[in-house]
Amino acid sequence: MSIKTANQTVLERLTGAQPFLVDCRPAREALGLPDRTVCHAGPPLPWDRACPTVQAAILCAIRYENWAPDDAEARRLVERGEVAIGPCHDRGAVGPMTGIITPSMPVFVVENRAHGSRGHVAINEGLGKVLRFGANDDSVVERLRWLATEAGPVLGEAIRAGDGIDLRSLMAQALRMGDDMHQRNMAASCLLARALMGRLARVRTETGAIARVADFVAGNDQFFLNLAMAVGKATTDPCLGVADSTLVVTMARNGTDFGIRVAGLGDRWFTAPVEMPIGLYFPGFSQDDANPDMGDSAIVETIGLGAFAMAASPAVARFVGAGGLQDAIRNTEEMAEICLGEHPHFRMPTMDERGTPVGIDIRKVVETGIAPMINTGIAGKVPGTGQVGAGVARAPLGCFVQALQAFATRKAS
Amino acid sequence: MSIKTANQTVLERLTGAQPFLVDCRPAREALGLPDRTVCHAGPPLPWDRACPTVQAAILCAIRYENWAPDDAEARRLVERGEVAIGPCHDRGAVGPMTGIITPSMPVFVVENRAHGSRGHVAINEGLGKVLRFGANDDSVVERLRWLATEAGPVLGEAIRAGDGIDLRSLMAQALRMGDDMHQRNMAASCLLARALMGRLARVRTETGAIARVADFVAGNDQFFLNLAMAVGKATTDPCLGVADSTLVVTMARNGTDFGIRVAGLGDRWFTAPVEMPIGLYFPGFSQDDANPDMGDSAIVETIGLGAFAMAASPAVARFVGAGGLQDAIRNTEEMAEICLGEHPHFRMPTMDERGTPVGIDIRKVVETGIAPMINTGIAGKVPGTGQVGAGVARAPLGCFVQALQAFATRKAS
Repeated sequence: MSIKTANQTVLERLTGAQPFLVDCRPAREALGLPDRTVCHAGPPLPWDRACPTVQAAILCAIRYENWAPDDAEARRLVERGEVAIGPCHDRGAVGPMTGIITPSMPVFVVENRAHGSRGHVAINEGLGKVLRFGANDDSVVERLRWLATEAGPVLGEAIRAGDGIDLRSLMAQALRMGDDMHQRNMAASCLLARALMGRLARVRTETGAIARVADFVAGNDQFFLNLAMAVGKATTDPCLGVADSTLVVTMARNGTDFGIRVAGLGDRWFTAPVEMPIGLYFPGFSQDDANPDMGDSAIVETIGLGAFAMAASPAVARFVGAGGLQDAIRNTEEMAEICLGEHPHFRMPTMDERGTPVGIDIRKVVETGIAPMINTGIAGKVPGTGQVGAGVARAPLGCFVQALQAFATRKAS
Repeated sequence: MSIKTANQTVLERLTGAQPFLVDCRPAREALGLPDRTVCHAGPPLPWDRACPTVQAAILCAIRYENWAPDDAEARRLVERGEVAIGPCHDRGAVGPMTGIITPSMPVFVVENRAHGSRGHVAINEGLGKVLRFGANDDSVVERLRWLATEAGPVLGEAIRAGDGIDLRSLMAQALRMGDDMHQRNMAASCLLARALMGRLARVRTETGAIARVADFVAGNDQFFLNLAMAVGKATTDPCLGVADSTLVVTMARNGTDFGIRVAGLGDRWFTAPVEMPIGLYFPGFSQDDANPDMGDSAIVETIGLGAFAMAASPAVARFVGAGGLQDAIRNTEEMAEICLGEHPHFRMPTMDERGTPVGIDIRKVVETGIAPMINTGIAGKVPGTGQVGAGVARAPLGCFVQALQAFATRKAS
């Protein structure tokens, strides 16, 4: 197949996905995730190379699962290999920031009906002290247990009670409502909450639980972020292994390495050290407090959202330090320079209905020197801190250079 | 008081309102609306000058209240004065399109905590065959009865269960999400649904009712329009009677006349024949099927929303035939030419956080010849048809010329 034909095939898969939210159930059931396994964000990561924030989240998850009573014992289990760690991406899942998933955690199930693939993601915990930003105290564990015992089962029953919820049309709508679906998920979260409210009212359980779940969903403006990521996973997995394609189908970070995968190069990761995001910090924090870039959330940039859709979200542009509408449009135009196409469904009223740029071509990235931009939250580098800000990160060019070399070698062989 | 000082006072009231949704209860309780009274949109309207669509809605409302078994008997009651008709605006209320309110209809209560005023409005019926667009068959009556017996009581209990819902912050947010809050209320409706979902889950009634109300709220993208209008009413009423102010505080249409009221001229209406909206029509309909402009909904333009906020809503600009973002911005800039100020809370990311134009000055309208624009739905002129399209209408300049003459006469006297 020619590169051009291969890339066109991948672009069609990237833009032709039909993602539906169909379930919420424990990871052990949905993913077949084995006991004593902790999934994390980004490319594979030996324990001793993990940053303290990711390590703290892994240890906290082990305590949450009652596999160890404290961090010291939890650490021993990991070091002896009695608890396995590995990327979410290898298990059909994605996770924001530290990206932790363990077997008892409920995960949303997103089915891509165009290609039969599924993407999975944990329930967004909300803001403040949360596991994904490396917080690890009792309040974090308590919330995780509530998600597993009450929120997950209630949401699962509500979702299963009707047809799948069409996430492509929901996301297309949210993009018209100022979401980039990475830093800002206000509209998508509201649209999802509205889609769930009638179903929740029909869940057959005592009403206290429904009200608590309704309040939890309603109280989290980033609730949809995780769903957007699962859509990205279900959309991009069918692109892996399309021979001769130079399009990027995974971007992910683990706080140590930034990794990409390319359609024509199978499941091989090309990694380089993560960079520091540049952005705005919450009061009392500065760049000195920031952990290097992390999370699987860059999957949304891979499907034409996040920083690639900045023009749709002038409110975010300001928040992440990118200025006003014209700056936001310039960002989207810059990303268009490294993309093969425009998304036929994700259209931006602020750019007179142009589609968001999608289909990052490693050749264009290397040729122009323009690294993909990623809108991102910023975690504290001291474990237990939580989120300290939000900003924009760049994918390291090294990943793309390596991938292009591998591609050239493969074509030559 | 100088005109300048008076106008500044009115502008502060227009922009400093603190509207909260505090209740939903029958109009007879909330408004003290007497038995055998039908409120309609716009300025006062003798029965024989009402267009057939408004007449049909009034007769349908009389059947709904069981004051008459059929339209013929209902008409006799009106003609004999045994059923009174009068403007919503005289009763502390507003109504979209035909704007019908009768005593048993539940109305939302919006309290303006900055000025102690209240605005009221019926529950939006949804799309299709609905009373506000002049539909009048059994399905219309049946829905109205369900609103009165189930939706109204459930919504009332849900709203009263907590603090009032802050509508100013909700509307400011919705404006950042692409709503103009006249033709497009998608974001505001979602935000309100999300604010209600936890409260609804706590209503003490059998769950079937809650689920039906949740579905009804979730299924209507224009649900919030009526609330935006009640906010307009609660905001503008405290401006009526501020002597020496030339700012417009009411714009309303009844399908026959367009009427305005001016802060410095009390509750006197200045009317002129309504114009035909220009817009886009649903399949199968054209301008020939359109009823002339009607409804109290132009109250939202009076407080800086609707066509005045077109730049915030490029998706609407296209829908109402105004083209893309640059056209939308030009519309908002044109409205700024006839306004005294910019809204400090209603800010538009697409215009780099400028506030929407607010405070229409009759002197500027007459001087520039720029008539206020209004985003509007278009009803069919044949009773029973319902909505046929949506577009943009202009306020007739005659209203403003008359008002300015009256103002000059008063100042001279």
